Amino acid sequence: METLTLVLPHFRKFTVPSPLRSLFRRSISLKAQFSTDSSRKSGAKEFPIAGMEEAFMGFITGRKKATEVAHSVWKNIIQKGDTVIDATCGNGYDTLALLTLVADESGRGCVYGMDIQQEALDNTSALLEISAEENKRKVVKLLKLCHSKMEDIVQNGNSVRLVVFNLGYLPGGDKAILTMPGTTLAALQAAGRVLVSGGLISVMVYVGHPGGRDELESIQGFASGLPVESWASFKLEMLNRPTGPVLILIFKK
Amino acid sequence: METLTLVLPHFRKFTVPSPLRSLFRRSISLKAQFSTDSSRKSGAKEFPIAGMEEAFMGFITGRKKATEVAHSVWKNIIQKGDTVIDATCGNGYDTLALLTLVADESGRGCVYGMDIQQEALDNTSALLEISAEENKRKVVKLLKLCHSKMEDIVQNGNSVRLVVFNLGYLPGGDKAILTMPGTTLAALQAAGRVLVSGGLISVMVYVGHPGGRDELESIQGFASGLPVESWASFKLEMLNRPTGPVLILIFKK
Repeated sequence: METLTLVLPHFRKFTVPSPLRSLFRRSISLKAQFSTDSSRKSGAKEFPIAGMEEAFMGFITGRKKATEVAHSVWKNIIQKGDTVIDATCGNGYDTLALLTLVADESGRGCVYGMDIQQEALDNTSALLEISAEENKRKVVKLLKLCHSKMEDIVQNGNSVRLVVFNLGYLPGGDKAILTMPGTTLAALQAAGRVLVSGGLISVMVYVGHPGGRDELESIQGFASGLPVESWASFKLEMLNRPTGPVLILIFKK
Repeated sequence: METLTLVLPHFRKFTVPSPLRSLFRRSISLKAQFSTDSSRKSGAKEFPIAGMEEAFMGFITGRKKATEVAHSVWKNIIQKGDTVIDATCGNGYDTLALLTLVADESGRGCVYGMDIQQEALDNTSALLEISAEENKRKVVKLLKLCHSKMEDIVQNGNSVRLVVFNLGYLPGGDKAILTMPGTTLAALQAAGRVLVSGGLISVMVYVGHPGGRDELESIQGFASGLPVESWASFKLEMLNRPTGPVLILIFKK
């Protein structure tokens, strides 16, 4: 556990670095959305996660991204108060989506957000600070740690409902720092161990960068080899945009 | 047009052959479902087509079939009164699903059902007779014709909202009679031409029988080669059940 650095969510004030400006712009528009009277009254989620019909049909008709399909699947897996892991925080959008799905007024639940880059954890902190209410974001624990070490941070075995991966490099960050097939494979195996029955591993794989195709092969090999009695694994991909992201879903029965 | 045999839907009475018994059993249970007061009042569909959330989550958690995912997609594409094509009638479940989505009280719309086997058309007729109201099933036109000839039957060019394929052999029928990559490819090309903008080609591919994998390769080649400006094509497959059906969706922008 010596490499574990806990970045607890007492988010600090800071000036906005350039790669974060788009996050801030997006957040402002999100805030505008969730500050309407109707959403306040209905207790609507801060982060607008589409239903599956909207997300999936939007995806196949070109109006929604693959990440939105993934989020709509998570929405159907996660229950309030669950423990979930974002294995690759990146700029924090997935962490925010998970927080939205896990947190309620009770303060129960836990979102572990992992990344090996401090920049990713900072970006995630910043996004959460401007997009989620303070009492809710207390359930997030950000950790500067390789995702293959996720078993070190989960308190109770087989208790995690969802582990999400968004692979490749940090958008807007150093493209030389990439997730690698070997570590990703170890992380998937660890995810399989911490997952509760009825839980899901969700992996977004990018194949447009060098090594991306190898990483996909490696993940596909892992997912294909799982025994059908206790696992069901799926792949959703766009065929005529070969560099588009590939969504792998691995369900523990 | 000399090979075209029109089997108009004045469904005849007949004794139930063995492969159809399961259809009848299923139909009886369907009838029980749609004869409830609440469904009568709300004008609910005869054939229970699940919403996408139920179908997709059911599929990845092992409670629903891939065909149900396909049906839930069709539900989001088809509007009442549309013209659609079932390119491979088989035992008629897809034709029935299409009829349910197309037909309303107005009598508008058209479901062309094609198959090269008389047995398939007979099974489809029988299923429709016991599962759909007479005034609704008038929109179905069953044709003993290869699906590569679909342009011969569509009256107006580019007017079809959905073309569906369920490939392989007729369940319960002669396994030596199979859809073949060459004809399927010609049929897909024809489907692409008759389809309206905003329409969809939905292909369920089975890879467990000899030649099935080649047929998948052929369809994937077609779908991958479509220009991204005017088409979006997708593949959904189960990874750890390699003989499971593969769903290909091809959307015309």
